[in-house]
This record gives sequence, structure tokens and C-alpha cells, in this order.
Amino acid sequence: MRQLLITLFLVLTHTATAEDGSRLWHRFEGAGTASIQGVKCLAARELQSNWKGGPIVLQRNGGLHREGYHIATSKGIIRISASTDIGLLYGAYHLLRLQQSGNAHQALNITERPAFARRILNHWDNPDGTIERGYSGHSIFWENASTEVIRQYARANASVGINGTVLNNVNAKPEALSRETLKQVKTIADILRPYGIRVYLSVNFASPMRLGRLSTADPRDKNVIRWWQEKVKEIYRQVPDFGGFLVKANSEGEPGPCDYGRSHAEGANMLARALKPYHGIVMWRTFVYSANDDDRAKQAYKEFMPLDGKFLDNVILQIKNGPIDFQPREPYSPLFTGLKSTPMMAELQITQEYLGAANHLAFLAPMWTEFFSLVKPQSLRAIAGVANVGNNQNWCGHHFAQANWYAFGRLAWNPTLTPETIAREWLGQTFSTNHDFLSTMTDLMVQSHETVVNYMMPLGLHHLFALGHHYGPQPWYAAPGTRPDWTPPYYHRADAQGLGFNRTRKGSDAVSQYPQPLADRYDNILTCPDSYLTWFHHVPWDHQMKSGRTFWDELCHKYSAGVDGARKMLTVWDGMESHVDADRFADVQHKLRIQVRDAEWWRDACLLYFQTFSHRPIPQDMDHPVHDLNEMMQFRLDITNYENPTCGYSR
Amino acid sequence: MRQLLITLFLVLTHTATAEDGSRLWHRFEGAGTASIQGVKCLAARELQSNWKGGPIVLQRNGGLHREGYHIATSKGIIRISASTDIGLLYGAYHLLRLQQSGNAHQALNITERPAFARRILNHWDNPDGTIERGYSGHSIFWENASTEVIRQYARANASVGINGTVLNNVNAKPEALSRETLKQVKTIADILRPYGIRVYLSVNFASPMRLGRLSTADPRDKNVIRWWQEKVKEIYRQVPDFGGFLVKANSEGEPGPCDYGRSHAEGANMLARALKPYHGIVMWRTFVYSANDDDRAKQAYKEFMPLDGKFLDNVILQIKNGPIDFQPREPYSPLFTGLKSTPMMAELQITQEYLGAANHLAFLAPMWTEFFSLVKPQSLRAIAGVANVGNNQNWCGHHFAQANWYAFGRLAWNPTLTPETIAREWLGQTFSTNHDFLSTMTDLMVQSHETVVNYMMPLGLHHLFALGHHYGPQPWYAAPGTRPDWTPPYYHRADAQGLGFNRTRKGSDAVSQYPQPLADRYDNILTCPDSYLTWFHHVPWDHQMKSGRTFWDELCHKYSAGVDGARKMLTVWDGMESHVDADRFADVQHKLRIQVRDAEWWRDACLLYFQTFSHRPIPQDMDHPVHDLNEMMQFRLDITNYENPTCGYSR
Repeated sequence: MRQLLITLFLVLTHTATAEDGSRLWHRFEGAGTASIQGVKCLAARELQSNWKGGPIVLQRNGGLHREGYHIATSKGIIRISASTDIGLLYGAYHLLRLQQSGNAHQALNITERPAFARRILNHWDNPDGTIERGYSGHSIFWENASTEVIRQYARANASVGINGTVLNNVNAKPEALSRETLKQVKTIADILRPYGIRVYLSVNFASPMRLGRLSTADPRDKNVIRWWQEKVKEIYRQVPDFGGFLVKANSEGEPGPCDYGRSHAEGANMLARALKPYHGIVMWRTFVYSANDDDRAKQAYKEFMPLDGKFLDNVILQIKNGPIDFQPREPYSPLFTGLKSTPMMAELQITQEYLGAANHLAFLAPMWTEFFSLVKPQSLRAIAGVANVGNNQNWCGHHFAQANWYAFGRLAWNPTLTPETIAREWLGQTFSTNHDFLSTMTDLMVQSHETVVNYMMPLGLHHLFALGHHYGPQPWYAAPGTRPDWTPPYYHRADAQGLGFNRTRKGSDAVSQYPQPLADRYDNILTCPDSYLTWFHHVPWDHQMKSGRTFWDELCHKYSAGVDGARKMLTVWDGMESHVDADRFADVQHKLRIQVRDAEWWRDACLLYFQTFSHRPIPQDMDHPVHDLNEMMQFRLDITNYENPTCGYSR
Repeated sequence: MRQLLITLFLVLTHTATAEDGSRLWHRFEGAGTASIQGVKCLAARELQSNWKGGPIVLQRNGGLHREGYHIATSKGIIRISASTDIGLLYGAYHLLRLQQSGNAHQALNITERPAFARRILNHWDNPDGTIERGYSGHSIFWENASTEVIRQYARANASVGINGTVLNNVNAKPEALSRETLKQVKTIADILRPYGIRVYLSVNFASPMRLGRLSTADPRDKNVIRWWQEKVKEIYRQVPDFGGFLVKANSEGEPGPCDYGRSHAEGANMLARALKPYHGIVMWRTFVYSANDDDRAKQAYKEFMPLDGKFLDNVILQIKNGPIDFQPREPYSPLFTGLKSTPMMAELQITQEYLGAANHLAFLAPMWTEFFSLVKPQSLRAIAGVANVGNNQNWCGHHFAQANWYAFGRLAWNPTLTPETIAREWLGQTFSTNHDFLSTMTDLMVQSHETVVNYMMPLGLHHLFALGHHYGPQPWYAAPGTRPDWTPPYYHRADAQGLGFNRTRKGSDAVSQYPQPLADRYDNILTCPDSYLTWFHHVPWDHQMKSGRTFWDELCHKYSAGVDGARKMLTVWDGMESHVDADRFADVQHKLRIQVRDAEWWRDACLLYFQTFSHRPIPQDMDHPVHDLNEMMQFRLDITNYENPTCGYSR
């Protein structure tokens, strides 16, 4: 244990020189040179250390938004004003971002304020230090936590405006509220506070029973109510600015109010009342579904719509962007447009549970801006992202996965930023401001998500993943006795006629959960966007696509385009060698090679399996599958190792 | 044992219906319909069973070459004339070939005779039934041999004019001449004889010691001479038309006359004298080299040229087509143009020891006609091919490997046939006479060899194989203590300056073993053909190629073209599904998929390894390597299984 701690410190000592990705996008070289005047605060310290330009004045200005700032150049002096130290810090990081991405030379006149008041990371970290769907080592908060690592984490978050963090897994153990745990929560909160970050906790709804030894967790039970009040009080004694609770209740086996015949609203409101005196909030997840006959995509909507308007005002429903579960591409969850009188927040997934883990380069800003193009940011009270941070050297497992942490923060601050802007900012700070590098790699990043969708699940396909690991394809998986909604055939419905889940008015009618004119548009196979086609329709193999191809041929072309796209990413990266340090160049090259091989595995598994239904040839104008279906069907990925899995290759 | 025998017979019973490749190119359907008149012989029986056309007259005509025949249509009657039953049989097979390839409808006027008197298969079959470099099961001659299988084998050979077969491995055990073995040789010879095929044996030069218990095998020793005379007599008592001996002497550890200070000529002549009374011959292999400082490519020439004219006239030197060892592409062995007064025969390799075993589709007729374009068939007394036949269902392991057996026979009969003609003939008989199929697949076959050369060893590279299995690449292999000439770096000589073995006049001077103007042409890097470039030159990485590219870029493009070519073969084959039975379609598809994956492995292993010397980028206009060099260097292919190896993939 002690050994590990020492190792971590050694690593941190080396970060100034080692090109291991540990410095994230803060690649300041050497000490700052500028004179800083005005208030003394963290912002001043950061600039003192890292700003290479002319003199800067920091000043308080009560007229600005609590977290906002103003930056203006006048007579060679840069002035940052804000109403709080945090505003000044955000302004300082803005300035340093301009410097690091090579854009600090022009005269500045910038006014910024965040789009969402709460910009929160959700860490699915378990008390034992493991991370659910974590692909970058163990938790930085639990088991052998390092103060310095947590401080670096806080600084990275603050530099992109993230101001909240849920410290533990939504599948929460009651022990998350134990006295011992709360001691560590206080320690963490004290490190994060100077960086403007509040801590939150995921709680287990049955905590009063398992931790408090009560006989029930019924939200109407007085002892239960009192237990929660006392627990909240205990928390705030140690963490006066504690943010609140995140709750996964009556979902995938977790306990909740429905166990006692109470509604989600009753459960959430009970907790909200306990938190209210301290200005704490409840983030109540809507990710619920059960193995009944109803279309899983419809269930959250059906369960929560009747509760619209029944939640207290310090409850926010936390809704995943899509109605199923963080698939490479989903239509938005219809709850976002359905709920009218309930505070909502979106839950995005930064960690690549369904997007190649820490092996595949998939820049997610395009997926998130696609979401914001349909769900107006103004309709949301807050935003959450499931973090991809672990204790690996480079924080996120893949150097380019850092970009998704970065992008989440930037979009949480300003959801109108384009993926291009964010990619370019991040690349400039993280790797190089060389013009060719920036323009080539920005293109690569922006196209990467579509490439991954193409080789994994194009045209609206979803959940073709192997049970358990969600890494490789297993579209055929349907072991006898398995819940149908936990098997891919439930989602793709391949048969001799075609492919896809009929969610039209003549099918499960999920389309009707969308407002007009979207419902009509999705319902009609001729107007439904290609990208959602098999999501909403059981598409005949010979259906004529907008491209002029049949559906089967189009499917083949999409998979083929995915493989080509992956190959192109590798080729392009290989051409960037002169712009990048040798260590990170080799790391990324290694991952991109895995990605190409995995892309071929995905293409082969999906096309050859679907071909057993379509009985149509794969077109001649593309590379054909190179693996045999029966061999792929026999292959089992070792799911205990997320570090370097590949779909079907020995190592 | 008995069990296995029964299984073999069952298999043969099924051959009429199962599409398992067991029928080779004899895919006659049902009974013949034509009336056959004239002499009664095997030819008549074959036509009776299989000819679907009009009446045929078979007649003897003493004026023709012993194995030749004449076919002519007159007044609706087809007349086959020959001076022997074998001539008639060859004529009958010619007619059936026309029928099966869809070309029997026109009026015929054909006169044929073979280019080489001896057209011999060399089987590297061991007495225990294993086959050295055999990728299609066990020997059909030794251990559980089936009369019916051997008869089918004879028929296949006769149908393409092969008239001799060496029944055992050139690495011969003395037991090849034991009484027990000779009994089996007689059995086999009796089955083969009606099909015009003579048997030969490989002999171990130390047989008099190991089998006859003499104290020496010195060719001047009287007891040794007498032992051989007695042995030969014993053989001819049982096999009156026995062909003779094949000898690998003083080569790769085998015993030979040099062990006693005698020359190859003395050794060969001693055996030749023993065989002479029976019209038997000695085929003496020139495949000799030792681990001295001299360029291996020069050694056979240096050893045999001084012996030119010293061999008796029933000795034929059997010379491999190239100076090294059956590489995917070699220049011809300079012995062919050097020797002036010694009978010669070429040894070609049908089994794909260095061409992907039974996994890769590589049609070898283009390689062999390339050889005949430089070595005139008239300069050769005979021709041998190392067989690819085993007891697997489809004889050769890969359905398309049958085409190499077929092509060897056809070229041994007529070396002026083009690869296109042979491929088309074989395809028509073996699969389908559909016009599209024939033209598409003929192209595929004819291009396949160049594709394999490109992804394995383009531009004159050779012997980059892993030690032992000769299947996958291991250009880096150089374990301490290994003979240098058994390691790839001996052949490729990669360094910071360039790549290739300098065999110019300023190097090992192997070029001078070639006649003018070839010697000058090969010696000059500007006139040396690209295809032999690194064979003769240490080529600077930046050397300007005829294509306009640098040598390094050209090398990358060749490997890339190889991978593209392999992918294209798979795609094209996938498009042939409607023309081919399902079983063989799937078998070939499976193999082609392996071939693509192996091609990528070859490209990656070679390019990434050579890149550690060239330090030059792989060009942007191609797909880049998808495997990591260090992972490939750690990979060990299981060499005990040639059935379905792939270079680097788990199964």
C-alpha cells in the first residue's frame, strides 16, 4: 500500500518531462514570466507560474455572473474581472488556454458565463477502488488516494469549468454514507473546494436498513425520514457545501421506493426534503426498465411522465441522452421533450462503455452536439457526464480519451461550441499548434465518432454487444434463459424479411413518445433519418435507400466505410509522427492498430451474421470479411482485462 | 489401422456425389453415351464411361511418338490414333478434357507429343507416412495405402501426362531399399503401370552400410559396388520397368561420395553403372550448400561446374529452378546455362513450402513459365515436380492447389502453354464452364502468384521465413549460434544504407555465374529487373526506382499491393458463389480469408522490421500496418499444425 503511494508521487514528480500524457492539456513549459497584479488568489498563482505574456491585472467586479468573467486588453495590459475567486480562476484558465493553443496574441474582449449552473462528473467508482466501466485503472478517490493526484484532477476540471463531482458509483453501496467514508469525502471536498468543485454522493435507497439497521426504507416511514435527516446533517457538518445525492432507484436490481409501493417522486421528494435546509439537491435517475413485454425504449417515459410536476424543486431528473443506454448513436430520450414541469438534466457518458473502451479513438463532441441540436440546453437545469478518469498514468487510458473529458467540460460551459473548435483547442494544448497538424487532426477527431458508428452499429442499429463486456460484437448472443432485453436479437430483430426494431405506430409505437412533427417523421420509413432507420423500422433487405442502394447494400457500405475510416485514422496518425513526441505517438499508434483490427472484427461479425438472414451477397466494390462466422462465434473475449483487449487476436 | 482403411474406402464410395474436391478435375457426371470402336484398352474404358459425344474409333498407328497421339474428326467420327496404349489413353484424356472444359464441339485435328520424355513427381513421403513439406495429410503410398486411392492418383497423373513418380522423400532412409519396402514398391508399380507411370526411389547413399552392414559406402569400394548391383537386380526382379534412383547426397547432412573424398560424379556414375543394364537412370540433385563464407547462391554452381562432362549418360543432374530454394521468386539457377555437357532436369516445387502451404491460393504456372522463358525446355532432359498430394479428402489441402498439380503435368507435356490456358482448362473441368466465371477466375489465378510475391517477398527479397515452418515471416530471426545462412538477415542484409544482398561483381559476384548479356544486366542496378533487385543489389533506401518512387516507397507499395491483391481475390471469389457448389465455395472462402489476414501479417512484419533500418515513413496513399512489431516478434506459430495455421491469430 505504502509502496503504491510512493510510486504515485514519483510519477508526479516526473510529469514535467515524461511524455506519458499525465499532464493532460496543461502542457505549460517552465515558469511564467508575466507580472500579475490585483487580488491574490489561485488564479494569480496559476498565471504567475504559467503565463508567458505581458502584465495582467486581476480584479473583482460584483456585476458579473457568480462563475463568469470578463477579459479585456487595454494599453498592453490584460484585465480579468470576475465577481468571485472562481470566476477569476476560470478567466485565468481561459487565458492560459489561449496561450497554449497559440491564440493569445490578439487583443481580447471576452465575456463568459456558463450555460448550466451544475456541470458534474459522475464517477462510477466503487469503495474497493475498482471503477464500473472504467478503462483506466482504479479510482483516484478510494483506496490509496493521493492528495496531489486529486488536486491535479481538480485543476483539470476547473480549467474547463466542471464544478461538481459525484464521488461514487450509481450502483451505490450503503457504506457510501458510513462515518469512515464521509471522513474521506470531507478530505476530498477540502482539496476540490479551492477549484470551485462541490462533491456529491450516490446513495443506496436501502441505506437506512443496511447502514441504519431499520426494518424498512419506505420513504413514508418516519424512522426512515429521520434517518435520512440525521445522515444529511452529519454530512453537512463535515462538508458545508455538499452538493447532494445522485440516486439510481428501482433500476437493474437496485432498491427504491417502488419496493414499498411508493412512486419515484415520493422517494426523491423524501430525500429532497432532508437536503433542502442545506441547499442540497437530489439527482434522480430515470434509467429504469424491466423484463416485461413492453419495448425497453418506451419504459422510462411511461414510468416518469405520469409523475411530471410531482417532484420538489430541488429534485432534478437525470436522464440519459438516449432512451436505451449510451449506444454509439441513439435518438434522444423523449422524456426531454415530454416532461413539462420537472427539472431535468442530461446524463452523457464520457467513458467509452459502448465505444471501444480505452482502445478506440472516438471523439464524442459530435455525438453530444447532435444531442443538443434536438434537446435545447435551455430546457436543462444541469448536465452530468460519466467520467473516464482513473489512476493510470495518462488519466483516461487512451491519450485521445482525454479529449472527451475536455469536451464534456467545454460543452457543459458552452453547448454551442462546435466539435471542430473543441478538437482544435484540445489538440493545440495537448500536442502541437502546428497548422498542418491541427487541421489534419481536427478533421480526424471530428470524423472519428461517425467512423466508430459505421463499423459498430450504423443505420440505427444498437446493442449488438457481447453480454457483460460491451466491447466486442455478439449480434447472435441469445443464451437460453437470458432476459430477452439483455440479448442483441431483442434489438436488431433480424429475419428473412429484414432488420430492425419496429417502433412505428404499427409496431411498439415508441415514435408516439416524440412530439410532432418528429413523431411523423420517425414513423415514416421514407422520412426517418438513415441514422435512426433500424431503430424505428424493421427495414426490408431490399428497401430502397436515399443513396440509391438497397438497404442490405447500404448496410455493407456503412460497415466497409467504418473499416476504411479506421484504417485512414491510422494512416493519418502515422503521418503525424514529426509533430508528436515519440512516447505518445507510439501509444496512440498502438491503439489505432487495435482499432483497425477491431473494426474488421465488428464488420465481419455483423455482416456475416446478418447475411445468414439476408441471403444477399456483399457488394463487390468493397473489401470483404476476413474472419469466419463460426470462428467468431466461438471466440470469447477475456473480459477481466480492459487494458488491451482486442476482439479476436491472440497476444 | 483397419479402421482407417475402412474410412478411406467409405470416402471413395462417396466421391461421386460429395463436393469435397476428391474428384479433382475429373468431374464426369454419370455414364458415357458414345460408342467406342477399335482396340480394347484403358482408353476405351475411360471413354466408354465418360464420353458424352458421338462415336469414337481408337486405332494403333506405329508412326507416332511412343507417347504421342493424333485426334481427328471426320464425317462425324472422332479418330484417336497412337502407337501405344498409353498414347491412346493420353488421347482419350485429351478428348475428355475438351469435353469437360466445354471445348469438344468443334472439328478436331490435333497432334500431340510430350516435350520432356520423363515427367516425374517427387513425393517427399516418409516410411512412417508423414510427408516433408506436405500440407495435405499423410502419404497415399506408405502406411495404410489404399489400392483405389493409388489408382485414382495414377489416373489423375495420366490425364495430364505425368509418367513417373518418386515414391519417397529425398531425405531417404536406407530402409527405402529394404525387402519389405520393395514389396510395397512392386504393389504400387503394378497399380501405376497401366497408366503409363514408372516408379522411382530416392536412395540414401549410405544404404550399403546401414542396410547391407558394410563398413563403407565409398563408391570405389568393390563391396559397395557389388551391393548396389545386387540391390538393383533385386528391384528389377520385382519391378521390371523401374525408373531409377533419385539422390540427395552431401546436402543438408545427408551422406554422399564426398564423405570418402570422391566427387559427386564418381558417386552418381557408380549408381548409374548398376542401373545401366536395366535402362534405369540416376537423378542426382545439385541442391548443395554449406555454412562457409561463400554466398550460398553460388555454391551449387561452384561445386558442379568442374564436373561438367564427367557424368555417365544415364545420369541427369536434377537442379532446382533457382539457386537458393524454391523461394516465391528466384532468378534461375545459373547451372542451367553453365553446364554444357551434362544432362539436366529441372526440379520445381508444386507443394507450397514457401508459398503459404495449403492455405494460400498461389497458382504457380506463371512462376514456371517465367522460368521457361529463361531456361529453354530443349536444354532439359526431364522435369520433376515436388508433389503436393496427400491423403486428405481433396488431395492437396486447398482446392486450388490441385491446379498446381494439374499445371505441372500440363507444362511437363507442353511448356509453351500459357498460364491463362492452363488455368482456364482446369477451372472449366474443376468448377464451371460459365463464361463469366472462367474469365474472372482465370485472371484471379494468373495474378495470384504475383500477389503472393508482393505481400511476402517483393523486389527480389528471399528467405524471410521463420526457421522451420517456412510459413510466416520472421525477417528478424537470428538466434545466437544459428548458422547465418539459416537466418533471414543473411539474405536481406538490411542496414541503415539499404536492403539486399550485394551479388554484383563488387559483392559476392554471383552475377558472373550468368552468361552475357544477363551478367551485365543483373550487375547494373539500373538495368537489373525490379523483381530481382535486392537479390543482386544492396539497394539504398532512397534509390530512384523506374516507377519514380524511392526504393523504400516502392517496397511499401509492393507490400500494400500484395495485401490489396489478397483482399481482391477474396472479394472476387465471394462473387462467384452462384457458380460453385456450397461446400467448395465455403472451403475456398475460408482459405482466402486466412490468406488476407496472413498477407497483412507479412506486410506488417516486413515493413515494420525494415522500417527500423530505413527510418522512413510508410507513404500516406496506402493502408498502414495494423500489428505491432514487438507483438509479432513475440508470436510463435504452432508449427506442428499445417492444416489451418494463420500467422498471428488466435483460434
